[in-house]
Amino acid sequence: MTAYTAPVRDIKFALFDVIEAEKLYKHLGIASADRELMDAVLEEAAKFTQSVLAPLNAIGDDHGCVLDKNTGAVTTPPGFKEAYQQFVEGGWTGLTAPEAMGGQALPESFGAAAKEMIDAANLSWGNYPLLSHGATEALKHHGEDWQKEVFLKPIIAGRWTGTMCLTESHCGSDLGLLKTRAELKADGSYAITGTKIFITGGEHDFTDNIIHLVLARLPDAPAGVKGISLFIVPKIKVSREGVVGDRNAVRCGSIEHKMGIHGSVTCVMNFDGAEGYLIGQPNKGLNAMFTMMNTARLAVGLQGLGLIDRSYQGALQYARDRLQMRSLSGAKFPDKPADPLIVHPDIRRMLLTCKSLAEGSRMLALHATTLVDVLERSGDDEERKAADELLGFLTPITKALLTEWANECTYHALQVFGGHGYIAETGMEQFARDARITTIYEGTTQIQALDLLGRKIMQLQGAGMRRFLAMIQAFCEANATKPELTEFILPLAEVTRQWGELTMEVGKKAMSNADEVGAASVDYLFYSGYVSLAYWWARAVATANAGDYPEDFKTMKRETARFYFARILPRIHSHAAAMRSGTAPLMALDAALFDS
Amino acid sequence: MTAYTAPVRDIKFALFDVIEAEKLYKHLGIASADRELMDAVLEEAAKFTQSVLAPLNAIGDDHGCVLDKNTGAVTTPPGFKEAYQQFVEGGWTGLTAPEAMGGQALPESFGAAAKEMIDAANLSWGNYPLLSHGATEALKHHGEDWQKEVFLKPIIAGRWTGTMCLTESHCGSDLGLLKTRAELKADGSYAITGTKIFITGGEHDFTDNIIHLVLARLPDAPAGVKGISLFIVPKIKVSREGVVGDRNAVRCGSIEHKMGIHGSVTCVMNFDGAEGYLIGQPNKGLNAMFTMMNTARLAVGLQGLGLIDRSYQGALQYARDRLQMRSLSGAKFPDKPADPLIVHPDIRRMLLTCKSLAEGSRMLALHATTLVDVLERSGDDEERKAADELLGFLTPITKALLTEWANECTYHALQVFGGHGYIAETGMEQFARDARITTIYEGTTQIQALDLLGRKIMQLQGAGMRRFLAMIQAFCEANATKPELTEFILPLAEVTRQWGELTMEVGKKAMSNADEVGAASVDYLFYSGYVSLAYWWARAVATANAGDYPEDFKTMKRETARFYFARILPRIHSHAAAMRSGTAPLMALDAALFDS
Repeated sequence: MTAYTAPVRDIKFALFDVIEAEKLYKHLGIASADRELMDAVLEEAAKFTQSVLAPLNAIGDDHGCVLDKNTGAVTTPPGFKEAYQQFVEGGWTGLTAPEAMGGQALPESFGAAAKEMIDAANLSWGNYPLLSHGATEALKHHGEDWQKEVFLKPIIAGRWTGTMCLTESHCGSDLGLLKTRAELKADGSYAITGTKIFITGGEHDFTDNIIHLVLARLPDAPAGVKGISLFIVPKIKVSREGVVGDRNAVRCGSIEHKMGIHGSVTCVMNFDGAEGYLIGQPNKGLNAMFTMMNTARLAVGLQGLGLIDRSYQGALQYARDRLQMRSLSGAKFPDKPADPLIVHPDIRRMLLTCKSLAEGSRMLALHATTLVDVLERSGDDEERKAADELLGFLTPITKALLTEWANECTYHALQVFGGHGYIAETGMEQFARDARITTIYEGTTQIQALDLLGRKIMQLQGAGMRRFLAMIQAFCEANATKPELTEFILPLAEVTRQWGELTMEVGKKAMSNADEVGAASVDYLFYSGYVSLAYWWARAVATANAGDYPEDFKTMKRETARFYFARILPRIHSHAAAMRSGTAPLMALDAALFDS
Repeated sequence: MTAYTAPVRDIKFALFDVIEAEKLYKHLGIASADRELMDAVLEEAAKFTQSVLAPLNAIGDDHGCVLDKNTGAVTTPPGFKEAYQQFVEGGWTGLTAPEAMGGQALPESFGAAAKEMIDAANLSWGNYPLLSHGATEALKHHGEDWQKEVFLKPIIAGRWTGTMCLTESHCGSDLGLLKTRAELKADGSYAITGTKIFITGGEHDFTDNIIHLVLARLPDAPAGVKGISLFIVPKIKVSREGVVGDRNAVRCGSIEHKMGIHGSVTCVMNFDGAEGYLIGQPNKGLNAMFTMMNTARLAVGLQGLGLIDRSYQGALQYARDRLQMRSLSGAKFPDKPADPLIVHPDIRRMLLTCKSLAEGSRMLALHATTLVDVLERSGDDEERKAADELLGFLTPITKALLTEWANECTYHALQVFGGHGYIAETGMEQFARDARITTIYEGTTQIQALDLLGRKIMQLQGAGMRRFLAMIQAFCEANATKPELTEFILPLAEVTRQWGELTMEVGKKAMSNADEVGAASVDYLFYSGYVSLAYWWARAVATANAGDYPEDFKTMKRETARFYFARILPRIHSHAAAMRSGTAPLMALDAALFDS
């Protein structure tokens, strides 16, 4: 098992220096966001995740969760429950929640920084608060006052947790197919009946009550996604007055045996006329669901970031310690029996891939979450609109790319370990198994790609993208005369121009053939991610150069950026070529002829 | 769990039609290689792998292997031992072994076709015969007559199995560091002492005896790889006369808990003055080891191929059955609640990636193994030299690419299943876990890349590559006037030209800086793999066009080739750009500054 060292220095650099979040927080009037306090909180988060959560990661993987078939109760891995208790006592469950609801009202982007540490330390454990956070967002934005009082406050206080009950066995990406029914009862509540699958945290032993947010259909609901409503269904009944009553008719029927995230329980939940309350308007459940979902998508992006960084740390340590073969350009440590792995160029290629994607992803994700803060806290309509458009554009990129890169980087990190990486005890293979779910849940990479190209570019006419391009252009112009940045600004400007052209080109083709969107979408998504990261890396160098940092730090950022531009950014060429080949190579073969 | 259907049609197409193996077998005078017999054997192999091995795959993953710490005995998963007994009774252990040793003397390339099926059906189980095959090759080429009689015959008969004991805890890729000692005893045998790790099949319950081939150092051996000798160390002692004696002082100390291939036992083997016999000359163990290793590298490439095809079969079935969302270009099955996944362009992209890499890899791998046949059976020195050079060039490409693609394709196949792919019961996640070892064992992708660029291109001055380029050129010239092939021949000729240029370019840079080899090697390896497959895909279309096949088959091959050229081959652009950026972006950052 590798230890975890929270990257506090780089988080501060990204959030406070590159993204200039303090300035934004002041502008938004977030009184709680005092720098001294935030620095202290980051140190506390580092301490908690390093010393409490990280040591439980392998234990969670080994033990998994256990269902008692008779009672439907789930026991989480040893130590998980106690860690949650410490988390609650530390006030972490309410870190970014409104003060009026008992929270500390810190910015969401600041919460994201803490969340990265949680996910890096123990992704499975982090899923429980992640789901509560999603439920918090849905209740905060769509719940009635009494619902906030009765359900939201205990979730924010950590006394209860939340879930998202969307998927059914026959519908994953396609929620329009869902069958769970809701019937109005005489007292104004609803009876919910149906079976949901893949419910993270659907049952556990952290808290007495669990608040399920459940998508279901009313009897007269229109077919498809326009006939979906959202309901609150507590495990233990709670009256409108907040009085806790009997066990509700919802029960965990079984739990899944998964490739990874063993400590995060995945439940089949049976609702058998369970008592529930409608959130928001009938048949408008998808709106509320998207509030949860968008939050959760950024959160899963952060999971990807956490895994990249954690597995990189393991690989880096190993590459420094493990002696194997001599450098091709002559022994570097002739007094030792062999040179450390880190002298070998391809080991460096793998390490620097992880490093440049970790630090780059951090800027991308933290910036996206600052837009959530603007959206939630700005009083200026135009500013909120701008943030909304940009966030809508960046969310699928953040979710998909950070999770795809997590899969790539956990692969590289394991490879650095060689055969030792394949053995459970080094911990590297767990990261790879845990990473594999992140490109699937909360919308697969394919769904993110359709959201980006089909909705954010085509339907919304690229409003968010134009704002992002303007940011890049402004940055390039502001730094055009700095010779030390030319090596980054010139290629950035060029690939940004190509990105715009490619977008127009794909968009035009899609007007005459809707399948062009699907055919181009995933390559377009990757292309967009690589250009976005080039922007953030150029900004990182600009920030480091301009700031009061040690020379070593400046060198580190500059060389990592150089690596990114030389070795990672050229991937866009393959994506562009694939995209430009259009639909024919994908659609020509009859489905009956796919067999070998 | 997905069923397995052995791709007999495509194996015959690749081996007999595209590669024209029958003609070669006749030329080499391989009497056993009668087409009617071979067709019957392929059908038998299909039957055995589909009905016996495939159903044991998930069982092997679930149960794993169990070590009795007291006796050092290992119990393999339920059914594995019985399947091995059937395998032996069917005569499969001697399929390609010489008749004089009790084998059936079928060509190695034909054996490779059967091996693909074994690996697709049950990779873990297949590791036991794989290791025996490696030991067979080493004994066949380097063993003394009595050693062949006493040790080789029982292995070929399947009564005993073989292992390769190379790795020690401090030396994996770097065998020069190994410490296991061998001391000559009065009777001419040796006492072997040391600990080997990662020994596949080091202990099991298939057979009474296990023949370990062990790398060790003689007392006066030079340091490094020039002081390594190879020894036969049986689990149960066997005299030079073949009399089976007492238990030898070799014992399995523990077994590894791994990410995948749970049915394939991975042992720590303790040699405590165990009785062994030298194979070949003292200090020349590396030669004999490379005989095993090259065989094993092609074999692991076939494992990759097996996993690509097996996971593709699962994904294809699911994509046809699973209804989810409507086609963007309008409902394709309006009478159903949703369209099947296979209507969606990006699902097709993932499927066709797997399909084109599976069928392409099959041609690449089977062709490489025909060179083994030439090397072993041709009486013409020049022909053998040519085969040897070409095989040396194609082995690292085959091993590395087929296993890297196995990781990519098992990723795609799981992704097609969405959340259901992450659950153990669908079987898809096992393929991904099993695939992960294949880019590591028998030489990591990094080692293959250095072998290709450092040794086969630089040291051997590209002799093998020139032969391969000549094959491509001859094919392009022979088909230059066929308009239906132009779309493949033109880009193939062009990328082949670029490949040659790039090779010269990298080679030149490497003359002045040895680190250039390491910096370019993995990208060069991938580049080479993609061009190689373009050649095979062009040949596949040419063969299909020219032959007496149903129109549907011709269409299928042509469209899959088009997909490959449009969507996969462009990956070379990114690899070329990365390579051309040279060593600086990799080597500039001081090892101390890699932390975030």
